[in-house]
Amino acid sequence: MSEQVKYLLDESRIPKAWYNIQADLPKPAPAVLHPGTHKPVGPDDLAPLFPMELILQEVTLEREVPIPEPVREVYRQWRPAPLYRARRLEKALQTPARIYYKYEGVSPAGSHKPNTAVAQAFYNKQAGVKRLITETGAGQWGSSLAFAGALYGLEVQIFMVRVSYNQKPYRRALMETYGARCIASPSKETQSGRAILAKDPDHPGSLGIAISEAVEVAAQRDDTKYALGSVLNHVLLHQTVIGLEAIEQLEMANDYPDVIVGCTGGGSNFAGIAFPFIGAQLRGGKKVRVVAVEPAACPSLTRGTYAYDFGDTAHLTPLTKMHTLGSTFTPPGFHAGGLRYHGMAPLVSHLKELGLLEARAYEQTKVFAAGVQFARAEGILPAPEANHAVKGAIDEAIRCREEGVSRSILFNLCGHGHFDMQAYMDYFAGKLEDRQYEEQELAMALAGLPSVAEPA
Amino acid sequence: MSEQVKYLLDESRIPKAWYNIQADLPKPAPAVLHPGTHKPVGPDDLAPLFPMELILQEVTLEREVPIPEPVREVYRQWRPAPLYRARRLEKALQTPARIYYKYEGVSPAGSHKPNTAVAQAFYNKQAGVKRLITETGAGQWGSSLAFAGALYGLEVQIFMVRVSYNQKPYRRALMETYGARCIASPSKETQSGRAILAKDPDHPGSLGIAISEAVEVAAQRDDTKYALGSVLNHVLLHQTVIGLEAIEQLEMANDYPDVIVGCTGGGSNFAGIAFPFIGAQLRGGKKVRVVAVEPAACPSLTRGTYAYDFGDTAHLTPLTKMHTLGSTFTPPGFHAGGLRYHGMAPLVSHLKELGLLEARAYEQTKVFAAGVQFARAEGILPAPEANHAVKGAIDEAIRCREEGVSRSILFNLCGHGHFDMQAYMDYFAGKLEDRQYEEQELAMALAGLPSVAEPA
Repeated sequence: MSEQVKYLLDESRIPKAWYNIQADLPKPAPAVLHPGTHKPVGPDDLAPLFPMELILQEVTLEREVPIPEPVREVYRQWRPAPLYRARRLEKALQTPARIYYKYEGVSPAGSHKPNTAVAQAFYNKQAGVKRLITETGAGQWGSSLAFAGALYGLEVQIFMVRVSYNQKPYRRALMETYGARCIASPSKETQSGRAILAKDPDHPGSLGIAISEAVEVAAQRDDTKYALGSVLNHVLLHQTVIGLEAIEQLEMANDYPDVIVGCTGGGSNFAGIAFPFIGAQLRGGKKVRVVAVEPAACPSLTRGTYAYDFGDTAHLTPLTKMHTLGSTFTPPGFHAGGLRYHGMAPLVSHLKELGLLEARAYEQTKVFAAGVQFARAEGILPAPEANHAVKGAIDEAIRCREEGVSRSILFNLCGHGHFDMQAYMDYFAGKLEDRQYEEQELAMALAGLPSVAEPA
Repeated sequence: MSEQVKYLLDESRIPKAWYNIQADLPKPAPAVLHPGTHKPVGPDDLAPLFPMELILQEVTLEREVPIPEPVREVYRQWRPAPLYRARRLEKALQTPARIYYKYEGVSPAGSHKPNTAVAQAFYNKQAGVKRLITETGAGQWGSSLAFAGALYGLEVQIFMVRVSYNQKPYRRALMETYGARCIASPSKETQSGRAILAKDPDHPGSLGIAISEAVEVAAQRDDTKYALGSVLNHVLLHQTVIGLEAIEQLEMANDYPDVIVGCTGGGSNFAGIAFPFIGAQLRGGKKVRVVAVEPAACPSLTRGTYAYDFGDTAHLTPLTKMHTLGSTFTPPGFHAGGLRYHGMAPLVSHLKELGLLEARAYEQTKVFAAGVQFARAEGILPAPEANHAVKGAIDEAIRCREEGVSRSILFNLCGHGHFDMQAYMDYFAGKLEDRQYEEQELAMALAGLPSVAEPA
């Protein structure tokens, strides 16, 4: 048996600073606009929602943003996360490729999300905040913020997309075990939620709606703030510990990636692994192919429009320029995994426009087949989200076999699937559907895009 | 916030040998007897069930049994497992105690069980075996053998106690993802199963019955062997990597345990953490209090009889002297966690008789309350089984607070509870019952004990 190789770093090597790709961009990303005035927002506009430290991280152009020592101390529980050389998978695929994966499922909540949840909870606690409000889809983010809230003694309230709330009671139970309160969204607790329910009492919910509800509640009280698990610049920033560690670990392996693969919903785990490598390339380092993989059921990067749009359904958030399917987009009921947000992180979208990454969409049965193959070879059961990256990496490795070339492939295994077994059971039972959107359906989803003139 | 401290060892420090406590016993454990003749069994009697290497490990008196290098290479995926100083829990308890826990939930299957599953699969593969048959209760063992089977290309067939099979479809799905076949026990596939179903078509099953079925199938074919996840000497032997690593990690912390706490079902995770310390004591080292914690719903060590008994319900296994509740014992339906075997590992039983350990039983609501407190402080959600050890450690820490003494407490957090959320939900919903057995009930369970004269 060809064995895995594990590359571990000493905990002194947990990065001391996050990497900010905004410092290295050849052209800055488009400004964020106020939803009412369509003028660029300033820090004060965001102050009802976020503590000032996080707002400043949203706009800073410093390349390195220091990680507070108390945050590094919490990171030590699971960081540096292991990097594995997937020799058993390579053997199963009979590929000359060298496949590496960074495994973020070792965190207490089981994914990369605590990297930012802990940082956000820390800055909020420091600012005197008592309560954090957020939304969650598949539940990885909600459980991570619940975990971080428990550590810092912050009350946590989570609007959970109703379809997930009903389908994933165990994910909910995890959040409740950490002491958080979960509310099915759309709910009767907010104006945004009530407005949706008035039109459709059985609405399955969407991340866009849940964000509206969370933002609405958070803006009402001074001691209460909002927390987002992806999309925003500061969230992507916090995730760069993944790629920064991977660079050091690949040095241990005397290797450097030819291809980097990550799955994209809002874009944060993808940015976390890819940005430090793209930044090195922008500063004159080795060129690397970067592949973002998304579900065909929520194809913002591959089939969305690059335009200004709202982050939420009720249009309470600022406007950001991103690849979007429209803020009223709801992924179809048959879609089993996460990665269901209508928009892509503005920084990821901007990099795609700059030609610094490519995007690919997969149908879900192929994605689950890849996950099962990975589990049998490597022993780790990936989250359905992570299966997209697994599938992308396997396809790259098969291409290496076909071309007879040994390339170095790095992907982010962003979380385990222990709370997603229903999706695996549905896959085994042949219940998962594959479907591409028709052009007409996509056009309908995009019909609600606001008309915004981009500022000069 | 007082932070956790993580003690990690370099992977070169994965033990090179398992520790065999039989080498240091002041008095050997009673012989294992043939179920028909009541004479001590020899290696040949066990050959239909196990490969010879494992049979020899069952009886060896060598103190150190070398770990094959290929097994160490698989261990590297998650070993050395971390040892944590639970400072956040200490602070929550306001205790002067120093609480350490070894975390075995980092393995791919989520518990300590792969430590022996990988070793057993390795020796079986080496012996040319094609198929492994086993049983599982809560599912930790079944998923671990399924994982190990996938690594070595062995077919794995698992008789799963029916009540768990029905209540835990996600645990079953994990085994199936690894490629194993799960059968609800009692089943129609064996004589033992059919005999039980004839009397009671709705029998909920028990580990004793599932073992009968697995042993019956395994004995029928030369290319098929049986694998057990606890109880036997070689299984306990494989688990000693836990305690051996902990000794080195506590040296890093400049500490040594005053008290060691482990939960006991069959006894393997408990033995894994405790035996290396008890062995050191037997060889003249520091005396350490060792506490075995079991559920009040399955109280073999605290309320069972120390006698020769069968390992299974159909009486196909050899007779071993152990603390037993009788081989027909079935834990009550309200019991939520694992730790449901009628007997205790012969070596653990023997050590209790020698006064080298003490035992304690807890009711389940107190055990879950401890687990929730632990999760909120330390971020890790324990398996219900592990919650017994958590409760034991917390009680010891509270005693330190009350006595104003700082003791060093080490416990084994043998697995995570990601597949046990229904039990947590039942706990939160107030559905878990606490019940002690009446003397009469216990006497009934014990009525079937065989009449065996111990050989001189």
